[in-house]
Amino acid sequence: MSESFAITPEDIDAAAVRIAGHVLRTPLVPAPRLSELTGATVLVKHENMQATASFKERGAVNKLLSLSEAERGRGVIAMSAGNHAQAVAYHARRLGTPATIVMPETTPLVKVENTRAHGARVVLHGETLSEASQKAHELAGAEKLTFVHPYDDAAVMAGQGTLAREMLADAPDLDTLIIPLGGGGLMAGNAVAAKAIKPGIELIGVEAALYPSFFNTIHKQDKPIGGPTLAEGIAVKTVGQLTLPIIAGLVGDIVLVGEDLIERAVNTYASLQHSLAEGAGAAGLAAMLKEPERYAGRKVGLVLTGGNIDTRLLAAIMVRELERDDRIVAFRLTTSDRPGLLGRIASLLGEEGANILEVSHGRLFLDVPAKGVTLDVTVETRGPTHSRAIEDALAKNGFAPRRILPRGLAEPAR
Amino acid sequence: MSESFAITPEDIDAAAVRIAGHVLRTPLVPAPRLSELTGATVLVKHENMQATASFKERGAVNKLLSLSEAERGRGVIAMSAGNHAQAVAYHARRLGTPATIVMPETTPLVKVENTRAHGARVVLHGETLSEASQKAHELAGAEKLTFVHPYDDAAVMAGQGTLAREMLADAPDLDTLIIPLGGGGLMAGNAVAAKAIKPGIELIGVEAALYPSFFNTIHKQDKPIGGPTLAEGIAVKTVGQLTLPIIAGLVGDIVLVGEDLIERAVNTYASLQHSLAEGAGAAGLAAMLKEPERYAGRKVGLVLTGGNIDTRLLAAIMVRELERDDRIVAFRLTTSDRPGLLGRIASLLGEEGANILEVSHGRLFLDVPAKGVTLDVTVETRGPTHSRAIEDALAKNGFAPRRILPRGLAEPAR
Repeated sequence: MSESFAITPEDIDAAAVRIAGHVLRTPLVPAPRLSELTGATVLVKHENMQATASFKERGAVNKLLSLSEAERGRGVIAMSAGNHAQAVAYHARRLGTPATIVMPETTPLVKVENTRAHGARVVLHGETLSEASQKAHELAGAEKLTFVHPYDDAAVMAGQGTLAREMLADAPDLDTLIIPLGGGGLMAGNAVAAKAIKPGIELIGVEAALYPSFFNTIHKQDKPIGGPTLAEGIAVKTVGQLTLPIIAGLVGDIVLVGEDLIERAVNTYASLQHSLAEGAGAAGLAAMLKEPERYAGRKVGLVLTGGNIDTRLLAAIMVRELERDDRIVAFRLTTSDRPGLLGRIASLLGEEGANILEVSHGRLFLDVPAKGVTLDVTVETRGPTHSRAIEDALAKNGFAPRRILPRGLAEPAR
Repeated sequence: MSESFAITPEDIDAAAVRIAGHVLRTPLVPAPRLSELTGATVLVKHENMQATASFKERGAVNKLLSLSEAERGRGVIAMSAGNHAQAVAYHARRLGTPATIVMPETTPLVKVENTRAHGARVVLHGETLSEASQKAHELAGAEKLTFVHPYDDAAVMAGQGTLAREMLADAPDLDTLIIPLGGGGLMAGNAVAAKAIKPGIELIGVEAALYPSFFNTIHKQDKPIGGPTLAEGIAVKTVGQLTLPIIAGLVGDIVLVGEDLIERAVNTYASLQHSLAEGAGAAGLAAMLKEPERYAGRKVGLVLTGGNIDTRLLAAIMVRELERDDRIVAFRLTTSDRPGLLGRIASLLGEEGANILEVSHGRLFLDVPAKGVTLDVTVETRGPTHSRAIEDALAKNGFAPRRILPRGLAEPAR
């Protein structure tokens, strides 16, 4: 292992001792349904069970416990609108250290409130992460606070590396680890840990296709970087200076996953593993869904890195998946308005084996002839073939069905 | 321990050996956020991580593995529209045993399809569970199939009891187990297991308030039984003959939880433990939410018994919780229709710190004066005080706000 790396396996061993009892030793759980789906033997490390629901606590606690008494007394500062903010705020309070978190002014209210709820001082500054970051460094200098970097910090990287150490202690026969890759702290720490324990293990980093920062740097490409992503936690535009050499040296491959795969992975964790993953947290599974044949027969460790997903977004994702599978379909029916109409439609749908979920009545829509009526019905079906049979039956009975988007299922703002 | 009980601790020890490798030894996970919420030290046994997402596999596998070669060759039959059906079908296929599942004709499509997907023959019969049950017994006799009862069967009860055995092996200092109570197979098996290992442990059974079957029988009361419940898995009208003596003899208390508490518990598992619980699966947590002071300072083991919750129902529950907290509110604004209106409202809401989630425009609503316009805006706020401030600002600016239910968030049929 190169001596130029920022951390050594011994740093990770020391971190494991230091953080024991401060964060959960999360379970590594065999996932039979994900194994069936992918053809691999899949085990999931459930970091979403940490108090603030992400692996970020490991690095944050290791950093906090590495400070001198004097440094801890003066306090720490971090720039983050996400899981790193929660992790630093939560453990700083536990350890009696004042914490300041700087966030861009555009940060959603919920994230600001969640961080304040952990007792941190929140400073909102600037439009972008880099403006907020600059402010955090200024405050650190002016108030003599220790800056806790989310990834480019040896203590943080060593803390994150405890994860792979636990995984290989629990399941020594894992042959592949698939790990989400943002700034690279998690990947670098775990690469050093895993290769020290098991040199033959394959390490795969997963970036959001919209943020191929390491992919570009390592493969000397210039794919565009940026845009709104479900995987906010790994939406990082520049690679870490300390993390890059480790990742370039030890990681076998970097896989890019598109938004559709990330969304499918979030939904798959919910429906088959009954566990909530945020977009970045599901990136490893997204890589398996992209190329299942690549992992067939292997024993794969996935890290479900975090579970902080907006409730409304998750609700929309879950319902949209049912629509995509044609198991929830909505029809707009147009007919003349006669008594008993709803009863006739309900009977017809019942005969066809469709389960009515919602009915809405729109007598005043502009595109309906006078004396006509439109009725939107949303039904649950067995799938595409069944949906088409229902549509045909509605047409044959004179209801002129048109497929529409089910009500109230529009995608919320991200 | 009474000798008249249908199972002994030794039966559970034998079951543990028999089912090892056939079902997951699920993790017992410390839940820091649930501990903060309740004031107890809470550990959760995650049975929703089993292949079919419930504890029912333990009993089903123990029963299947207890049959003779000849019995297994002829096949098994069960009556269930829920988790027991999935468990029997899944493991019968694994073990090469033909399985027949009888369900009422009114069973939702998804449940029928899920059971067929596990390779079982599904027979739909009758309107009610008791009609379906009678049919299952008839078929069992006619086709010489072994009937696998969901709870009133010694092998099934012994299989379920392996759960508490694992919990007390992992955390010997648990002083309280809170367990959902339907037909009583889970409660009875775990009562025998837990009291044998740790006689001083307190056992609490939790029934849905709409289905107080054991509560009525043991306390000689006649509370009404029946009605639609989110906790379908424990909606059982009559107590088991084998389970009743054990529960009457060993269980310290039976707590009844209403639908509101069950819904809150489902949402709490999702938001604080990032794990999906069905209604019955969350009943133990619901009991803690009902009387947190009762458990303060204790070391409580909860069994998250199952994660099979309808996606649409879960989505509605999660969003409704945000509304209940006044963190998502919708206003219907009425004003005269002028160009730039939307811009002015958006600016006003922005100044007030509200995040706009949805806008809909209803020029044709009947209750609007001609030339008037209504606009429904749904916003995310910091809570009740903030919501009232926003409402006041809208009123002061002439938009005549009225609170309405956010669009598309009506409760789906259960």
